[in-house]
Amino acid sequence: MTAAAELSVPVVTVEGAQAPGPFLVVCEHASNVFPAEFGTLGLDPAEREAHIAWDPGALGLARGLAQRLGAPLVHAGVSRLIYDLNRPPQAPGAMAAKSEIYRIPGNEDLSPDARLRRTEAVYLPFHAALRAEIARRCATGPLPVMVTVHSFTPVWFGAERTVEFGVIHDADDRLARAVVAEAQARTGLAVGLNAPYSATDGVTHTLRLQATPCGLQNVMLEIRNDLIATPGAQDAMAQTLAPVLAAALARVETGTGGD
Amino acid sequence: MTAAAELSVPVVTVEGAQAPGPFLVVCEHASNVFPAEFGTLGLDPAEREAHIAWDPGALGLARGLAQRLGAPLVHAGVSRLIYDLNRPPQAPGAMAAKSEIYRIPGNEDLSPDARLRRTEAVYLPFHAALRAEIARRCATGPLPVMVTVHSFTPVWFGAERTVEFGVIHDADDRLARAVVAEAQARTGLAVGLNAPYSATDGVTHTLRLQATPCGLQNVMLEIRNDLIATPGAQDAMAQTLAPVLAAALARVETGTGGD
Repeated sequence: MTAAAELSVPVVTVEGAQAPGPFLVVCEHASNVFPAEFGTLGLDPAEREAHIAWDPGALGLARGLAQRLGAPLVHAGVSRLIYDLNRPPQAPGAMAAKSEIYRIPGNEDLSPDARLRRTEAVYLPFHAALRAEIARRCATGPLPVMVTVHSFTPVWFGAERTVEFGVIHDADDRLARAVVAEAQARTGLAVGLNAPYSATDGVTHTLRLQATPCGLQNVMLEIRNDLIATPGAQDAMAQTLAPVLAAALARVETGTGGD
Repeated sequence: MTAAAELSVPVVTVEGAQAPGPFLVVCEHASNVFPAEFGTLGLDPAEREAHIAWDPGALGLARGLAQRLGAPLVHAGVSRLIYDLNRPPQAPGAMAAKSEIYRIPGNEDLSPDARLRRTEAVYLPFHAALRAEIARRCATGPLPVMVTVHSFTPVWFGAERTVEFGVIHDADDRLARAVVAEAQARTGLAVGLNAPYSATDGVTHTLRLQATPCGLQNVMLEIRNDLIATPGAQDAMAQTLAPVLAAALARVETGTGGD
């Protein structure tokens, strides 16, 4: 049924599938790889390094969190400009023709067949692999707690963003509010709930698709990317945030809530 | 990632994948086949024909609806006692050890490995195939409208059920209310909203997993199985309900709502 040929690069990688901790870490925008099958969409190398192509630093942070939390990590291997895995196939932003101030020439006037090809090559296998990880854990033990890890650009349409750590929820806000409370108590970061954007901006598809239907606790984390620009900074941020997540989960499980 | 070997019988079949109509018909409890890999769970032939093993008549009705509505039909090939596709893997009812007045010996004290094996062999491939059908339509054209087709037993723990046609919704009640209104206007059936059970009984997993995350209109239909006991009765019921569904969708799309 999922007959699409495999791409020349892995669309999805699962690290630490047997890790025993309660969390499952997901990084949909981990990669700025443009597979040969789809080309570079008319973008120059600088554009392909920019935040429009991926979430810089997010994979290093996600990996540092997963290691400290004893969690599996599911991450993508293809640029979000080929297919943005945090968007459903009908969303214009799934294969964005424009992103912030950038034109994406190779995404303009995509035919239905081209949209279908990317959906089958990227969206379906990534989310099937994530679904399988979740279902296996649901079948055999405690429900996993899903954390998606993203980064955002410090300057957006010329305006500086002052928030450093955004915590976003969808229908179930329990874990997000607990993360905010613990981050405020334990870190010096400028924390924002549903910042720099929120579920109403259509940014919570992975939470809705993967966590909500099975009743998993879930939260989406957004770190300003200038704070995680190097491997050392990514690891330091993981060191800061891993205890925040662990304490937030304990709050939710003991019913002491967030702010 | 979905490494489970295929079963000796098809877990999922898609009929009419290219059908052009707005609906997508799903029948999770279409089959009372017990694949050799899992055996008969200690049930005798009469028990394997009973409503606990499948939804008698549902496949014939679903097929009749799909043909009249020009819709693809996605149906299961394995008994719900092997894995109930309308339940998440952590639900006791996904591999029920007891169903109504029946013991299911082969489902008692299932090990985590056994639960995992059934999840990988049945749940994951069925829902991946359904997800693929939905994603393809979302990528290329109007969002499909998902209708799941079920049947229920006329006698439950010794009590007679008087409702004949149950219409069940999850978070989005628009299409369900419109179906009730049209069924009351167009048929002589005893119609019940969220009868003989409702989302609070945990019976809407397929709606939550497949329709809600992508914003699809959706409804779950339940027909009392004595009304669709023969192929002729199934076809007659499809003839009755196809125009109900079409008119209900028109109501929702024009904003004239339900009762």
